[in-house]
Amino acid sequence: MPTPQDFRLEESDVPTPGEGQVLLRTLYLSLDPYMRPMMNEVPPAYAAASVQVGQPMVGGTVNRVVSSRHPRFQVGDLVLGSSGWQDYSLSDGKELVPLGEMKQPSLALGVLGMPAFTAHVGLLDIGEPKPGETVVVAAATGAVGAVVGQIAKLKGARVVGIAGGADKCRYAVEELGFDVCLDRREPKLAERLAAACPRGIDVYFENVGGEVFEAVVPLLNHRARVPLCGTISSYNGDTPPPGPNRLPQVLAVLQQKRIRMQGLIILDHYGDRYDAFRRDMDAWVADGRVKLREDRVDGLENAPAALIRMLEGGNFGKLVVRVADV
Amino acid sequence: MPTPQDFRLEESDVPTPGEGQVLLRTLYLSLDPYMRPMMNEVPPAYAAASVQVGQPMVGGTVNRVVSSRHPRFQVGDLVLGSSGWQDYSLSDGKELVPLGEMKQPSLALGVLGMPAFTAHVGLLDIGEPKPGETVVVAAATGAVGAVVGQIAKLKGARVVGIAGGADKCRYAVEELGFDVCLDRREPKLAERLAAACPRGIDVYFENVGGEVFEAVVPLLNHRARVPLCGTISSYNGDTPPPGPNRLPQVLAVLQQKRIRMQGLIILDHYGDRYDAFRRDMDAWVADGRVKLREDRVDGLENAPAALIRMLEGGNFGKLVVRVADV
Repeated sequence: MPTPQDFRLEESDVPTPGEGQVLLRTLYLSLDPYMRPMMNEVPPAYAAASVQVGQPMVGGTVNRVVSSRHPRFQVGDLVLGSSGWQDYSLSDGKELVPLGEMKQPSLALGVLGMPAFTAHVGLLDIGEPKPGETVVVAAATGAVGAVVGQIAKLKGARVVGIAGGADKCRYAVEELGFDVCLDRREPKLAERLAAACPRGIDVYFENVGGEVFEAVVPLLNHRARVPLCGTISSYNGDTPPPGPNRLPQVLAVLQQKRIRMQGLIILDHYGDRYDAFRRDMDAWVADGRVKLREDRVDGLENAPAALIRMLEGGNFGKLVVRVADV
Repeated sequence: MPTPQDFRLEESDVPTPGEGQVLLRTLYLSLDPYMRPMMNEVPPAYAAASVQVGQPMVGGTVNRVVSSRHPRFQVGDLVLGSSGWQDYSLSDGKELVPLGEMKQPSLALGVLGMPAFTAHVGLLDIGEPKPGETVVVAAATGAVGAVVGQIAKLKGARVVGIAGGADKCRYAVEELGFDVCLDRREPKLAERLAAACPRGIDVYFENVGGEVFEAVVPLLNHRARVPLCGTISSYNGDTPPPGPNRLPQVLAVLQQKRIRMQGLIILDHYGDRYDAFRRDMDAWVADGRVKLREDRVDGLENAPAALIRMLEGGNFGKLVVRVADV
């Protein structure tokens, strides 16, 4: 688990854009679980490199163009960027996505952004829920899990969430429309999950790993689908946990029940799936069928504590840092 | 691990077929790894019931019809059946597949039967090997593994086998055309596998589990495919093996590398895929492009020892019991 001492706030001069560059002011910074594996010395398999000690942390951002020597961007443009944990940054524009004007620009980091896109692709392309099937998702009020559950409901599935704490569970049922939500901090999760899934589990959207996964496995139905979108519970481990070794039993169950499990890194899909996501999600958000609570923190200096809180399961909704109002 | 004392040879009268039944003489009995989980008190997920203590063991067979009160079958017909470990059995014909006359009827249990069908569906439908990709398969001279490797070669892949013993490895390379075959009994399997797969692993056809799986995981490429067709190494375990718990690391790798893992039970596919299999395999076997060594045991009384030998990795090729010559 990272500590506040692993982070340092550094000040330097605001840089000046060269020819073909823009200077960006960060308005909102997204905090997401994948940031933890990016802090490892060995980079995760999806990243070209880890965040190096002394370099700024990475992260998705909503930015305002404050100075431009790039033909495609004007001062004042609102863009989706990847400035990381910085107030100001330079960009050659290649990775910037124009956002137009938005009433609530931070949505571009949440229900209209990467976490919801992960939910959309993982649930629909890998999970493929059918009406009447049972879908289970953990971190049920988190940025990904909340959207998974709501899309699954739109597709006619029965949705069972798992979340940390009674308030989150109540929110998942009352506000997000989950059929059931189980508090993972209460005892006997496996038994409660079995009771909540009387017809077994057809889709388990995996975004936490660990104890939840082990409770899910015995309940998986024949031909169940398991999109693997994250395993936050193991991000802080650098050695395998103590035994027994659950792997052989899990492989046997997957084989005997003809289960399909597939990993997903959403970066792969901006080319082929992003438009379909935005078409669906813009409509669902506009008419209120999908929503996502925002857990907003003010000030870049509070990002380290907020990230740690998220890794401990303490966030309630999509965690964003408001860096500046411009 | 079963012992010979777990089996009993019993004699009883040859039954008499009733109206709509045939009496079958077993010519060949197939011995396959799935038989071990069928001996558990709790049946495997793909079976309606386990083999009960005191009942005959199940198994695929080639039979001759020796008496018929069924309009579709004549005395003398050769059929594929599921008589199990019995000399004679009755059938209502529903599950019998007419074989016509075959020079070598036992092929219907091997290279033209269930194991090869498993290889065909698992490799082509789940593994989807592309030319130049690396395919790894264990139990490389076994009934499934040998066919997996040869089909993968036909599809242009580089094929690395793993087998128990130098003689099997030599056979896999010299006779079956594998590019490399590693002896799993020699030390440092993981290192040798890494050296044999300089461009990583694109398809791992899983039919053993255990140590081989753990050596494979770090070498899996992005978007690798893992058909799960069996985990013979864990069939004798009734409790999870000691730690460390490898599951969290494996889930993280599958996610980060976008790997697809899918279980297969071949029983599911006789309806939709059997004709395509036979079209391919009949041609490949006829022109010698796919072959399968037969490990033949004489006499039903020797089936228990042969099954145990297979579970210990002692078979060399497709294990069949010649029960009678008729």
